[in-house]
Amino acid sequence: MKKGAGKAINGRPAAAARGAFSLGELAALVGGAVSGDPKRVLTGVQPLDSATAGDLSWVAEERNVRTVSRSAAGALIVGKLEHASGRPAVIVANPTAALAAWLARWSPPPRPKVGVASGAFVHSRAKLGRGVSVAAGATVASGARVGARSGIGAGVFIGEGAVVGEDCVLFPNAVVLDGCILGNRCILYAGAVIGSDGFGYVWDGQQHRKIPQTGIVRLEDDVEVGANATVDRATFGETLVRRGTKIDNLVMIAHNVEVGEHSILCAQAGVAGSSRLGRGVTLAGQAGIGDHAVIGDRAMLTGQSGVPARGTVAPGAVLSGMPAAPHREFLRSAAVLQRLPELARRFEELARRVEALAKGGGPWNSESRKS
Amino acid sequence: MKKGAGKAINGRPAAAARGAFSLGELAALVGGAVSGDPKRVLTGVQPLDSATAGDLSWVAEERNVRTVSRSAAGALIVGKLEHASGRPAVIVANPTAALAAWLARWSPPPRPKVGVASGAFVHSRAKLGRGVSVAAGATVASGARVGARSGIGAGVFIGEGAVVGEDCVLFPNAVVLDGCILGNRCILYAGAVIGSDGFGYVWDGQQHRKIPQTGIVRLEDDVEVGANATVDRATFGETLVRRGTKIDNLVMIAHNVEVGEHSILCAQAGVAGSSRLGRGVTLAGQAGIGDHAVIGDRAMLTGQSGVPARGTVAPGAVLSGMPAAPHREFLRSAAVLQRLPELARRFEELARRVEALAKGGGPWNSESRKS
Amino acid sequence: MKKGAGKAINGRPAAAARGAFSLGELAALVGGAVSGDPKRVLTGVQPLDSATAGDLSWVAEERNVRTVSRSAAGALIVGKLEHASGRPAVIVANPTAALAAWLARWSPPPRPKVGVASGAFVHSRAKLGRGVSVAAGATVASGARVGARSGIGAGVFIGEGAVVGEDCVLFPNAVVLDGCILGNRCILYAGAVIGSDGFGYVWDGQQHRKIPQTGIVRLEDDVEVGANATVDRATFGETLVRRGTKIDNLVMIAHNVEVGEHSILCAQAGVAGSSRLGRGVTLAGQAGIGDHAVIGDRAMLTGQSGVPARGTVAPGAVLSGMPAAPHREFLRSAAVLQRLPELARRFEELARRVEALAKGGGPWNSESRKS
Repeated sequence: MKKGAGKAINGRPAAAARGAFSLGELAALVGGAVSGDPKRVLTGVQPLDSATAGDLSWVAEERNVRTVSRSAAGALIVGKLEHASGRPAVIVANPTAALAAWLARWSPPPRPKVGVASGAFVHSRAKLGRGVSVAAGATVASGARVGARSGIGAGVFIGEGAVVGEDCVLFPNAVVLDGCILGNRCILYAGAVIGSDGFGYVWDGQQHRKIPQTGIVRLEDDVEVGANATVDRATFGETLVRRGTKIDNLVMIAHNVEVGEHSILCAQAGVAGSSRLGRGVTLAGQAGIGDHAVIGDRAMLTGQSGVPARGTVAPGAVLSGMPAAPHREFLRSAAVLQRLPELARRFEELARRVEALAKGGGPWNSESRKS
Repeated sequence: MKKGAGKAINGRPAAAARGAFSLGELAALVGGAVSGDPKRVLTGVQPLDSATAGDLSWVAEERNVRTVSRSAAGALIVGKLEHASGRPAVIVANPTAALAAWLARWSPPPRPKVGVASGAFVHSRAKLGRGVSVAAGATVASGARVGARSGIGAGVFIGEGAVVGEDCVLFPNAVVLDGCILGNRCILYAGAVIGSDGFGYVWDGQQHRKIPQTGIVRLEDDVEVGANATVDRATFGETLVRRGTKIDNLVMIAHNVEVGEHSILCAQAGVAGSSRLGRGVTLAGQAGIGDHAVIGDRAMLTGQSGVPARGTVAPGAVLSGMPAAPHREFLRSAAVLQRLPELARRFEELARRVEALAKGGGPWNSESRKS
Repeated sequence: MKKGAGKAINGRPAAAARGAFSLGELAALVGGAVSGDPKRVLTGVQPLDSATAGDLSWVAEERNVRTVSRSAAGALIVGKLEHASGRPAVIVANPTAALAAWLARWSPPPRPKVGVASGAFVHSRAKLGRGVSVAAGATVASGARVGARSGIGAGVFIGEGAVVGEDCVLFPNAVVLDGCILGNRCILYAGAVIGSDGFGYVWDGQQHRKIPQTGIVRLEDDVEVGANATVDRATFGETLVRRGTKIDNLVMIAHNVEVGEHSILCAQAGVAGSSRLGRGVTLAGQAGIGDHAVIGDRAMLTGQSGVPARGTVAPGAVLSGMPAAPHREFLRSAAVLQRLPELARRFEELARRVEALAKGGGPWNSESRKS
């Protein structure tokens, strides 16, 4: 992996100089205890395998501990003192959370310039809160409201009467259609589409006639929606994504779906109409949920698994395969499936032996079939 | 589900006031018979479970009838008089189609302002029909034509020589690339891409060399393409989607595919190059069709099912799984698959018993293996 | 398929007139030998089944040879003289590569007008090379650099400090976020998103806290990324797609993934975080690779197949199914799977027979169960 020169840890521009910092500063921000000299100065943050003497690194899991001795990192964030192998360290309960907090402080994303850029189209009946930025090529339509400090990227569209909360970030070309509502601190990544019409038609004998989709999408606080993902508006009422839920790229959430709080929907997963996901649900990549399904709290669907229409998944269940079955059973079935042709062959042989035994007189040993 | 206050049924703005209406007006529009007072006034439309006394609701299917008695709806659209349980009603052959027709009339989507907005880029050699609207940030390139009354949303791109028919709606950031052709009454939802290059390369011994994609995409009348879905242009000739077909979000239609009339392609389904789908085909969510496959009229592929390259599916077939098999067989196989490990274990046991029987002298009953 | 009138082979506009050409000209460009009159004039290029007497066609594979006699094509590109069936022809080692080379010369895509269009937003600290075009509605942010002759389409966003190489084409509404790097001759199709944040969160006991994604995406030379596909930036370091790799529509490449040279990733495939794909790998449509997997050089994953997290695939392997197994085994297992219910029924019958045999006295033939 080629590294950029100079003091930037990576190519992404940072708002502030990613300057030097001391172990003490770090400990103060993340609420941790220092082991070693709190005045120890660091200038970068890197994973264990690419860190140099000036870099801070971290030990996220027990299994990473053995990598520490091979790392050149100058200091560590660790969960237990012994994980530091004697190096300068900050000890916290959750090293990855501490790392995230520090990075957010030390290397914040650049904040766009406050105000409406030349080339942005903000309707005279739209309302922008204090500190809002609207980039060139963006549209904020009539009656739309954007909360304080939110950033509206280039080419973003915010439709009539739509509401974007405070401290939201809408990356370039994201779309929020008419009347949809975003809470505070939501992030829409590039190309995400919120509030496209639900896929509802009725066959009238001659053609599929569109059922008007008169509802909206509501994203509660702290919801994030990935690049080019889509969340459709409800036929009536709301398609609802509850607070804290994170949705990855290219995910599809259909009309009238409800996703519970703090759920994780990985890339290319799809949820069909009117299904309800509980709180803390995980859909791994490319998982699919049929319409009108009910997924219990904390359930996990592994990659590419599928729940049929009107299916139900118990709280806490871990399911795999299509149709989805308990993960352990799936693994066992998959293992047998691979030797199924051999089993089928042996079954036919056994059937022939039994037939011969049934017909025959005396005992028949395993040599006899060779004769 | 939180409800908006006031008379709006939902947050989406409507072009006209969604005003009060009488049962008689409704019956006249949908061609139904009134049961009860035709002057009965209603002010909203809601599903059975959320309707109040001022709301119209509807009974779509036999199984919804039992919900009627629990509903507070003031009047109903029903297929049979007895489904109304004595309430004021309009009786029609197809209640859902009647509902759709009424909603389209009563709560039409807002029509954008006719004309070319400031900040739109319409080439001097592009042609716009009467009543066309082009929003800020949209581009209509040289030689492109847009038919009467079509609406071109913010950030939409219409390439050189492309043709958009009459009464089309192109939502924000949809893209129609050079030379592609849309019929009348087509809808492209936000971010849909029509006419990107087909994925065609040839290995020349050193690298994948791009095969120029010289064809186009043609969407016939009444075709709809979902948010962030993609339909690629043909290598030669046309990628063709016939009239009345509806394509959901994040669907992929590859180069040289032909999709027959009135088909339904649900979210995240994909069709590889040169495949042909008949008329009235249904692809459920995440279904995949390999290249050069042929799918018969009215065939249905259930969610996540897969048809291999050059596969054929008979007209009217309902298939599931990967590789796709008749749905009933799939369900039976899936059921056995779940108890396959147990079957495999019992098979080994049986094989040992047969071996013992074949070798042994006297009868061996089921108790003996416990000894 | 409807054909356009006049001399255009298709609706797509070409930069130059697709004028008449001689077999000799063709042979000279592709380095082939002429069979027949080198002055033979042709005016179009069409596949065998739609070519007319004025058209050039080609024979790509042995199995297409039988189609030649039915074709009206006036001349052919062939791999062997006998494939021409006596028609005028150009003989080359790789007919499809020769066709691609000829089409690129004879029917090049239209080149946009050089310069920055009115309505484009190019920051004063962005740098544009010679011959660059930037269309209306596009943004090139501060510190971004665009190499010579690259074309930046309408609505494209190029973020702060991002680098686009020479001779790149970015189709409308493509997005390259801050700091990401594209080599030379890269193509981003419409709506592709390069450098969205990786999907990284840590549960802090109360919520999923976002882990700042401080890395970038680097696409080496000759990489193409399909419409609405997404490649996420690394948490640290780079998400890397090596030279010559082609990525189809709606593909997802997660953070910290590395894809080797000259690989082919078909539509709707997905690769989860930190996985490494070798050189010349093929992922067919809708295939999924779990996180931290390692895929060997030249391996092929067939459509909808899935490799679990931390899985490894041997170089050159061809795998199918989920979890992915060797393709031949998969086919065999799939065949048995379809008759699994029948096998299970027969197994129970056999078990009963064995039980009876074990208990019983005399021989029991296959008729006895009918009695």
